[in-house]
Amino acid sequence: MTGRVLVVGTGLIGTSIALGLRRLGTEVLLSDTSPTAVALARDIGAGTVADTVAGETVAGETVAGAGAPDLVVVAVPPDVTAAVVVDVLRRFPGAYVTDVASVKVPVIGAVGAAAGPAAAARFVGGHPMAGRERSGPLAARADLFQGRPWVLTPGPATSSAAVAAVHALATGLGASVATMAPADHDEAVALVSHLPQVAASLVASRLRDAGEAAVGLAGQGLRDVTRIAASDPQLWAQILGANAGPVRRALELVRDDIDTLLGALAALDEGRDVGARAVLARVVAAGNDGQRLIPGKHGGGPVQYAYVGVLVPDRPGEVARLLAEVDAAGVNLEDIRIEHSLGRPTGLVEITVAPASRDPLVTRLTDHGWTVVP
Amino acid sequence: MTGRVLVVGTGLIGTSIALGLRRLGTEVLLSDTSPTAVALARDIGAGTVADTVAGETVAGETVAGAGAPDLVVVAVPPDVTAAVVVDVLRRFPGAYVTDVASVKVPVIGAVGAAAGPAAAARFVGGHPMAGRERSGPLAARADLFQGRPWVLTPGPATSSAAVAAVHALATGLGASVATMAPADHDEAVALVSHLPQVAASLVASRLRDAGEAAVGLAGQGLRDVTRIAASDPQLWAQILGANAGPVRRALELVRDDIDTLLGALAALDEGRDVGARAVLARVVAAGNDGQRLIPGKHGGGPVQYAYVGVLVPDRPGEVARLLAEVDAAGVNLEDIRIEHSLGRPTGLVEITVAPASRDPLVTRLTDHGWTVVP
Repeated sequence: MTGRVLVVGTGLIGTSIALGLRRLGTEVLLSDTSPTAVALARDIGAGTVADTVAGETVAGETVAGAGAPDLVVVAVPPDVTAAVVVDVLRRFPGAYVTDVASVKVPVIGAVGAAAGPAAAARFVGGHPMAGRERSGPLAARADLFQGRPWVLTPGPATSSAAVAAVHALATGLGASVATMAPADHDEAVALVSHLPQVAASLVASRLRDAGEAAVGLAGQGLRDVTRIAASDPQLWAQILGANAGPVRRALELVRDDIDTLLGALAALDEGRDVGARAVLARVVAAGNDGQRLIPGKHGGGPVQYAYVGVLVPDRPGEVARLLAEVDAAGVNLEDIRIEHSLGRPTGLVEITVAPASRDPLVTRLTDHGWTVVP
Repeated sequence: MTGRVLVVGTGLIGTSIALGLRRLGTEVLLSDTSPTAVALARDIGAGTVADTVAGETVAGETVAGAGAPDLVVVAVPPDVTAAVVVDVLRRFPGAYVTDVASVKVPVIGAVGAAAGPAAAARFVGGHPMAGRERSGPLAARADLFQGRPWVLTPGPATSSAAVAAVHALATGLGASVATMAPADHDEAVALVSHLPQVAASLVASRLRDAGEAAVGLAGQGLRDVTRIAASDPQLWAQILGANAGPVRRALELVRDDIDTLLGALAALDEGRDVGARAVLARVVAAGNDGQRLIPGKHGGGPVQYAYVGVLVPDRPGEVARLLAEVDAAGVNLEDIRIEHSLGRPTGLVEITVAPASRDPLVTRLTDHGWTVVP
């Protein structure tokens, strides 16, 4: 990254971008409609507060002096992103501009309509796919984008120089850049992000009607399915609303599947079961097929792993001692999962390793007194 | 546990019960319609194969000699459980009988109708809530039920002596026993187990239509929501079919919520947005409310935990080294999650600890050179 970057919007994403750029030695200017947010971002070292910026065009006049940004990152809430991008393109006629909204078609359409072709050439839509449960500048971190996908969605008017500038930004912050057509991006996130959010919220919301005894039977499956149900309602109303078309199409197909299931369940409930169980089995089998398509760790395509389950007492140091043993065996830990138990101080730790490592690891752990489950 | 136990059905659950009982020194007899399955169970030490059992009533005559079971555990597939329970109650007039089917009302209704009140007094419905991705006797383990819920659902005819016998079985195997009315149990598992399975399957099945680039954007949220979509279609067709009424009622409410969402999305898609975003926000907020009801680890009610995120290079021993550091700090690890990244060899490890441990741990890790994310 060379040049000067203006970050408009110092929430979690904007401040994280600013912190990452500062670590690379890039000069960063910050602005936000909230004086508190921009002051917090400045105080944690994200850059310099920019009130008016040199190079800016104000009332038809270019402000004199140095300091014009080469790149402007618009990191404001999704419902105002397009308007701010158009404003920024007008104010900084020499800068490339990108945004971070999680839905791209509405932004690119609005910018194309409002900014004119010369300005639109300087704009590249972007979507860094990183987030946290927490929000705001104080949750920001310079390495938020390390290893995460950052999708670029150039529009028809976008220049290749603009794409190169934003590509350098994303890779400089450690992200893996993917380039997609805006509509393809929005269809993709409807399936891999927005539909799972809706499903998690709907399943979790049913628990409001369940008694304490019922919810007490919750297992790891329910916990996994509903983890993202803790997400922010206001932000998700904006995201789902901005991607209304693709989310609606995906959700209509789910509704059709549910109607098929309900038909089979009604038949069974009423004692007519010819073919009904096959309908239920097909739905679960289709889920098997879809789940297998999800790439493995590090995006390297679906990878076959082996699993080793170990019973571990729930007291300090036991998991550490187990992993030290795995390390001493020369085995790389691909993943680890601790299964929660109800009312008992013993956990099942499931270790994911390369298939060739499984048998030697089981032998070693057993030899050293660990309870490996078969 | 005292006495002799006959396990009918040597799959994962039956063989695990048998192995657990053997470890307690209980005499176990095994039977299965599959000669291979019962021989495998015997070979791994689960008990003795029972062809005819002394004490059994055959053609109106009691078989002579010792060896009559005091308790029979019916661990056969859900669609044949009721018939086998009725058969076992008839064959062993001196034994208590329990089953392990994950839906209780159909079993208890069928047993009550077919077995008569004297026999039904000896039967207690049961549901040990443990399972694995793998099935069959070779996946069995003696400690499968350690710390897991085991629901008992006595019917109106069930004697308290029968309940005590099965209660002793479940607690002997390390499970946490909960007693519920059969209908309450079935409503509960519809919400905490069957509905999440359907949702995971439906979300995962949508990925079949997504291209490789789209699925490549999968993040941890999608992985969590769809993990249980890998479940066995044939088994789940039986479970969902057996619990058709409660699953149907829960799924109808989800369908109604989806219709509400589709109405709001259609309005937004067509440019009418008054109130539509509030509908979207309410669905996500309701999910927040439901998710908060899920008990924390060890069934101790929702517990507040603190989280510490650490960036860890993906090479052997780094996670072990981190956990040794956590241990050296005297902090008990409540949970650990490794966030997968796309195309990058750095992982974010999220450690869950008691709130009071958080700040000292962060200080120590930072002092020792770890990259703690704020």
